[in-house]
Amino acid sequence: MKKPWAGRFAEKTAKIVEAFTASVHFDKRLWRHDIEGSIAHAKMLGKQNIIPQKDANLIIKGLNEIKKEIESGKFKFSDELEDVHMNIEHALIKKIGPAGGRLHTARSRNDQVALDLRLYLRDELKEIISLIDNFREVLAALAEKYIDIIMPGYTHLQRAQPVLLSHHLLAYYEMLKRDEERFRNCLKITNVMPLGSAAMSGTTLPIDRKYTAKLLGFSEVSCNSMDAVADRDFVLEFLSASSVLMVHLSRLAEEFILWCSSEFGFIELPDAYSTGSSIMPQKKNPDVMELTRGKSGRVFGHLVSMLTIQKWLPLTYNRDMQEDKEPVFDTVDTVKACLSVIVSMMPKVKFNKTRMAKATEEGLLTATDLAEYLVKKGVPFRDAHEITGRAVRYCIENNKALTGLTLNEFKQFSNATDKDVFRCLKVNESINRKTSFGGTATKEVLRAIKQIKNEK
Amino acid sequence: MKKPWAGRFAEKTAKIVEAFTASVHFDKRLWRHDIEGSIAHAKMLGKQNIIPQKDANLIIKGLNEIKKEIESGKFKFSDELEDVHMNIEHALIKKIGPAGGRLHTARSRNDQVALDLRLYLRDELKEIISLIDNFREVLAALAEKYIDIIMPGYTHLQRAQPVLLSHHLLAYYEMLKRDEERFRNCLKITNVMPLGSAAMSGTTLPIDRKYTAKLLGFSEVSCNSMDAVADRDFVLEFLSASSVLMVHLSRLAEEFILWCSSEFGFIELPDAYSTGSSIMPQKKNPDVMELTRGKSGRVFGHLVSMLTIQKWLPLTYNRDMQEDKEPVFDTVDTVKACLSVIVSMMPKVKFNKTRMAKATEEGLLTATDLAEYLVKKGVPFRDAHEITGRAVRYCIENNKALTGLTLNEFKQFSNATDKDVFRCLKVNESINRKTSFGGTATKEVLRAIKQIKNEK
Amino acid sequence: MKKPWAGRFAEKTAKIVEAFTASVHFDKRLWRHDIEGSIAHAKMLGKQNIIPQKDANLIIKGLNEIKKEIESGKFKFSDELEDVHMNIEHALIKKIGPAGGRLHTARSRNDQVALDLRLYLRDELKEIISLIDNFREVLAALAEKYIDIIMPGYTHLQRAQPVLLSHHLLAYYEMLKRDEERFRNCLKITNVMPLGSAAMSGTTLPIDRKYTAKLLGFSEVSCNSMDAVADRDFVLEFLSASSVLMVHLSRLAEEFILWCSSEFGFIELPDAYSTGSSIMPQKKNPDVMELTRGKSGRVFGHLVSMLTIQKWLPLTYNRDMQEDKEPVFDTVDTVKACLSVIVSMMPKVKFNKTRMAKATEEGLLTATDLAEYLVKKGVPFRDAHEITGRAVRYCIENNKALTGLTLNEFKQFSNATDKDVFRCLKVNESINRKTSFGGTATKEVLRAIKQIKNEK
Amino acid sequence: MKKPWAGRFAEKTAKIVEAFTASVHFDKRLWRHDIEGSIAHAKMLGKQNIIPQKDANLIIKGLNEIKKEIESGKFKFSDELEDVHMNIEHALIKKIGPAGGRLHTARSRNDQVALDLRLYLRDELKEIISLIDNFREVLAALAEKYIDIIMPGYTHLQRAQPVLLSHHLLAYYEMLKRDEERFRNCLKITNVMPLGSAAMSGTTLPIDRKYTAKLLGFSEVSCNSMDAVADRDFVLEFLSASSVLMVHLSRLAEEFILWCSSEFGFIELPDAYSTGSSIMPQKKNPDVMELTRGKSGRVFGHLVSMLTIQKWLPLTYNRDMQEDKEPVFDTVDTVKACLSVIVSMMPKVKFNKTRMAKATEEGLLTATDLAEYLVKKGVPFRDAHEITGRAVRYCIENNKALTGLTLNEFKQFSNATDKDVFRCLKVNESINRKTSFGGTATKEVLRAIKQIKNEK
Repeated sequence: MKKPWAGRFAEKTAKIVEAFTASVHFDKRLWRHDIEGSIAHAKMLGKQNIIPQKDANLIIKGLNEIKKEIESGKFKFSDELEDVHMNIEHALIKKIGPAGGRLHTARSRNDQVALDLRLYLRDELKEIISLIDNFREVLAALAEKYIDIIMPGYTHLQRAQPVLLSHHLLAYYEMLKRDEERFRNCLKITNVMPLGSAAMSGTTLPIDRKYTAKLLGFSEVSCNSMDAVADRDFVLEFLSASSVLMVHLSRLAEEFILWCSSEFGFIELPDAYSTGSSIMPQKKNPDVMELTRGKSGRVFGHLVSMLTIQKWLPLTYNRDMQEDKEPVFDTVDTVKACLSVIVSMMPKVKFNKTRMAKATEEGLLTATDLAEYLVKKGVPFRDAHEITGRAVRYCIENNKALTGLTLNEFKQFSNATDKDVFRCLKVNESINRKTSFGGTATKEVLRAIKQIKNEK
Repeated sequence: MKKPWAGRFAEKTAKIVEAFTASVHFDKRLWRHDIEGSIAHAKMLGKQNIIPQKDANLIIKGLNEIKKEIESGKFKFSDELEDVHMNIEHALIKKIGPAGGRLHTARSRNDQVALDLRLYLRDELKEIISLIDNFREVLAALAEKYIDIIMPGYTHLQRAQPVLLSHHLLAYYEMLKRDEERFRNCLKITNVMPLGSAAMSGTTLPIDRKYTAKLLGFSEVSCNSMDAVADRDFVLEFLSASSVLMVHLSRLAEEFILWCSSEFGFIELPDAYSTGSSIMPQKKNPDVMELTRGKSGRVFGHLVSMLTIQKWLPLTYNRDMQEDKEPVFDTVDTVKACLSVIVSMMPKVKFNKTRMAKATEEGLLTATDLAEYLVKKGVPFRDAHEITGRAVRYCIENNKALTGLTLNEFKQFSNATDKDVFRCLKVNESINRKTSFGGTATKEVLRAIKQIKNEK
Repeated sequence: MKKPWAGRFAEKTAKIVEAFTASVHFDKRLWRHDIEGSIAHAKMLGKQNIIPQKDANLIIKGLNEIKKEIESGKFKFSDELEDVHMNIEHALIKKIGPAGGRLHTARSRNDQVALDLRLYLRDELKEIISLIDNFREVLAALAEKYIDIIMPGYTHLQRAQPVLLSHHLLAYYEMLKRDEERFRNCLKITNVMPLGSAAMSGTTLPIDRKYTAKLLGFSEVSCNSMDAVADRDFVLEFLSASSVLMVHLSRLAEEFILWCSSEFGFIELPDAYSTGSSIMPQKKNPDVMELTRGKSGRVFGHLVSMLTIQKWLPLTYNRDMQEDKEPVFDTVDTVKACLSVIVSMMPKVKFNKTRMAKATEEGLLTATDLAEYLVKKGVPFRDAHEITGRAVRYCIENNKALTGLTLNEFKQFSNATDKDVFRCLKVNESINRKTSFGGTATKEVLRAIKQIKNEK
Repeated sequence: MKKPWAGRFAEKTAKIVEAFTASVHFDKRLWRHDIEGSIAHAKMLGKQNIIPQKDANLIIKGLNEIKKEIESGKFKFSDELEDVHMNIEHALIKKIGPAGGRLHTARSRNDQVALDLRLYLRDELKEIISLIDNFREVLAALAEKYIDIIMPGYTHLQRAQPVLLSHHLLAYYEMLKRDEERFRNCLKITNVMPLGSAAMSGTTLPIDRKYTAKLLGFSEVSCNSMDAVADRDFVLEFLSASSVLMVHLSRLAEEFILWCSSEFGFIELPDAYSTGSSIMPQKKNPDVMELTRGKSGRVFGHLVSMLTIQKWLPLTYNRDMQEDKEPVFDTVDTVKACLSVIVSMMPKVKFNKTRMAKATEEGLLTATDLAEYLVKKGVPFRDAHEITGRAVRYCIENNKALTGLTLNEFKQFSNATDKDVFRCLKVNESINRKTSFGGTATKEVLRAIKQIKNEK
């Protein structure tokens, strides 16, 4: 097959080069957006009389037929035709004749591929945002449902203070809220139309870029033709936002893996979301969470890959940029798959209220409450901390709980203690007194849930 | 020196552990913000009667004295005291006695360090945004000044089409505009106050977080205490935004390095911004641009580092997070240094108008104009491209320029050519006809400059 | 289809989980090595009487049939069966009945997948090493063929000193020699057999690991069963070695892209290895080199991905490790494709001897020779450098070449100069006097080529 | 201060540029190796009569004096003098006069800095290898000491099979053995002398590189002058090897963090290696392990940084390469600090034998043994797995242990069971029957320990 740019060349492209440079095996995923963009472009060319209106009509008809062929699986993409753009243009010319050759007027693949990728990502971003929204709703609903479950809060993976499970779940709500904002910012800079920048300097033909943008639903038109074909900031921003989201999902996954271990025993994952072992008959493994955790690595890898590629490119388009698509596609797939499977699993997780409560009682988790009790009695916090520290050490050495000390014992550490000290050491009390804004008191967590509902 | 948390411990910390865990050698950079935060915290504690008002006053006075000592270089930070927070608190207690021990009431280092880092980054973000603003102004001014310089635009580092140098410079203007937006988004999520989340679950003491936030100029208060101490999204977002900015600076650096090579010869860097060789007496090297290009690597590295660290942490605070500060500090320094040196250098660069013009004339850079000329004569673009391709090959084989062909020669390739063809091949014409929005026509570039000025 | 591990489970795996956890769509690439490993395992089980010899024979026969089915494209892999291992085992049992159920004796997927990946990578490493060998030969042959081409050597992309093109090409020879060594080291640690580690603690059955290793051509057997299933060092080492190789290919690509620009004009790429533009008829682009340069980014990304995944895994196997295969496969493909296309292109590149020579003459590239000339006359080098620096500045200000100065002019800078100074300024002289070991003198470069040939 | 290369320049270097390009604040760390290299270089220059022998002697004397000044802290490094090399050369000339100006003969900073970095890294690599050796010894000693501790082995963080703690520890022994091999490979490619490559093409002066190499203890001399100054493979290889080592340390850290949680309770860290909380008096945190885990991120970041920097550099030296030193220095510090602190902590960790044993008994960890028992009775493994799976499910549903089933109950699942079944379910039996090479049987682990000792 003759290359569309063969005029200037004395040799045919080597087979090994065709294989090496072809992108159609992955960029064919853009076919729908390529056709959408071409139809809008043809309408504009017709309206502006840059090509005859009847040719514009023929082109649009032809493209719609090709669309149906691809949808029905009849269309055959060929490596020899390099990429999705050339495959479709070639099919169009074969279908409608020379009129098809007018489609690429005032357009280059440089602005065309930027357009396609933006159209594609715009759609996917909307889907991702909607999945995040679902996840947030699920978290808020679970927080409401399990408002009475108490568990240990951790720092350094050491039990720290009692918290509500709901409070813990809402921490993820906050993360996802920021994620959504990041994807919305990304959507905003993606939603800018590059078409009409042509190769890199614009065109001498009287195109109407704003009209095309309107047809394609773009809120903005790119301001500089060189930037428009050289820019992949929207890709970098997408990969960054996805990396941060994957950090959050990975943290959740890590926690769930810990929690469903025999040692923690805080949750049980549904059998339908677990897998077994080929050799050990007793095993039930949290593979879904492990894979989610593992998949964050691949998204970080894609980000590194794109930063590396883009960093050193002189203006404007360079072929290195062909390497932008696979990281985007794979990140889209990964992010959507992880969000979907977690959102679907979350409501089916069983929380083991008894185990969680027991873990909260066992330790010395209300030591901070004791220190704050002393503060209320007038002891400077630094001294209160020191006093409590000594009481804790006494408990460890004598294998006692703080609640197991007598008032006399307490008084040995500080005269400021009185019999109301026992109340402050209770887990329930500890939680319900944490009424500072954003704290774990039931009242405060319910307020947060209410506010979330009102935000809708 | 006794650790503030020593009460519970039976052994002293090993020296090797003290050295390994100490962070004061780098986090002392936060001293100003640590004191600022502590003063606001003390004011709030006093106002709420959580600590006696007179102790609050003593604390504030003490902290202001410490501030002066640090400013004047008299303060001695000690590794044994682990971090900046403990160094300052220890000095305070030494200075004002037990009242100093009341400062850490209703506060943990977990929320304190999150506060300090946010206060610090908020200041630095404002500076970075202002440096980007300067850079944008410089670019716009240069674009206006050099509006008459023509140069080759490149794709694949092959000469592609004539463009205005101003158009090229404004491509960077667009990149920086997006960078600024990204840093503003980052500022927004940084400007949220975590203080009052205490260790991770809030506090039983009657604090007023909104009051503290007001004192410190925060627009928002964090909504979930566990998220507040576990969250470093603002760091990740800062490192991402910085990475993308460094991509842009690196691309500019790469171009300037190319342009000041003997082969390109498009610019001359000022001697004051170049360095020589220890062995080769004739050398004049673009070290500033090379280092800028190289430094992008270190910012990417920091981003990878932080994603790796944060990705797998169960809630809430884990000591791994201490590793967040050096990447942030080094990125702040790197970004500011690169922006400053480039902004200062740019107006002193000499653009070699003659060499640039010559490079534009030499090639076949108006071939696309010829193809679009044929389109205007009614030839479908695909055929016009093919025809022009053949003409180009004829030129190469006969060592001619397109402008060197006769009308007869043109007619051999297409009958649609007429004597007005010569006009379309002129570089000036090519540029001035690219009037599509965002194109390189002088008129269009001047319009863009005017719009930039109006945006101010 | 029932899972092989379904016995313990009360629910069926959810469809979304099956899709999320399935790996057969990529790990089927291991089918050949999976069968090879299973045949060796079955032979050993038979020999040891762990399973009846006739069942072992049946298994081997069945596996060989499956091998033929896969080779001929008749075999149907199913997502429901999770991975390549279960697909093949399932087919085996269907084919030969209960005897097939004996194959997985004393084996887990944990050691099986480690085995398969090592067998696969071992083969690919040998191919990559052979491709590097080819490349080295091509470079040595080109160095010999073009021994008379002189070009500017660069530092900071500024012309520095005259060198032989052959010397430049042999620099890449050295890089590739180190690359080969790295891949050989990787081969060594890959060539260790994990099979027989079973789930992670070994087996109670009387297996003979050394026998299996011998059948499969392994030089070593892994020493610790827990390490054997948890270890992916060989993957990390492969990705590291590949990253460094890609750095080298990327540097070469960068140079060739520069050299085929109009500005340098040092080489012409064959038309068969270049591509054109969809809009600009005159363009001929070095896409092969650009893609090679871009593809280094994806290999770095895979390395980051695997480091991230592996870094935080408690022993032993975790499902995150399933994410190891796609990075390996893609890196194998990328490295082989880049090496192949470059090796095939290199001999067809045209080097423009005249342009290169001209670039060497134009500058002040023998200034160091002048300084060394002065050293030979007894001037301390630091003074010689200073003197030459002033002479260079005089040349620049008066638009002269060093060779264009008169002896009198020279004497103004240093009395140590004599009429033999002119000889030292000649490019040919400069090159041929650089006879220090590893220097660019023709004699020395020919010696290096001879040595390379003797190494074979 | 006048730059040594100022001769050719008309302007002084701008202050902002001096600050931006200076490296002495970090590369002064190379001072010892810089002097060592210069002394060897001066000896060679004298021996070859390239400079007068008495000047060589003066230089060596002067350098030795400077060495003492630096050692005693009297030497003042200055930013204005750019880097460590210029600082020392400048001091030398000041000290001994014009003879000092002869030192830089036949040398460039390009080969000098490559030399210094190799000398530095060679020393550090030897130290790192020795630390790894220590660590291996410690692990082997602990494995011997705790040979009677049984614990659960994990896959997917789910209890899988009983193992010996010693077996678990020896898995890390294997990792470190591979690490050591990697650092030895790195040492080999680092131990190549670049000096004498001068700027990039060698020199016209009659140097004797092999003599200098001998003086400096190099086993090889670089073969190509262009490669020698452009190459940083040894840095990349060092950063890769360090990254893999950090993966291993991070995995160990992760396990120890899990094990010292209340939930696992397998170990207690010494108080001297733990830290407390500023607010929660009961806390004892595994900060050393958390920081080790976190620090792996920074090493990965450095690797990414260097790959990014090096990837796109045309030959030969480019200033971007100045960015190589900080990643190397910080990685050296990080790796040594982490190894040292862990090696020192390991023997002080208390292993809780009872908790570990209990965790092994509680689960169904010998289910695989039951399946293998059935295999020995002639049941195909796939059926044995299925049968055991059903037994396990029965146990879970009836809240029984496998050891709690009666023979009758067993027979309901399979007639192949007999009363010897109870023996195979015992944890001790399970371990001691795992005698396959590399398995967890005590006998086999003791054999491994013995072999390790013999390797010494």
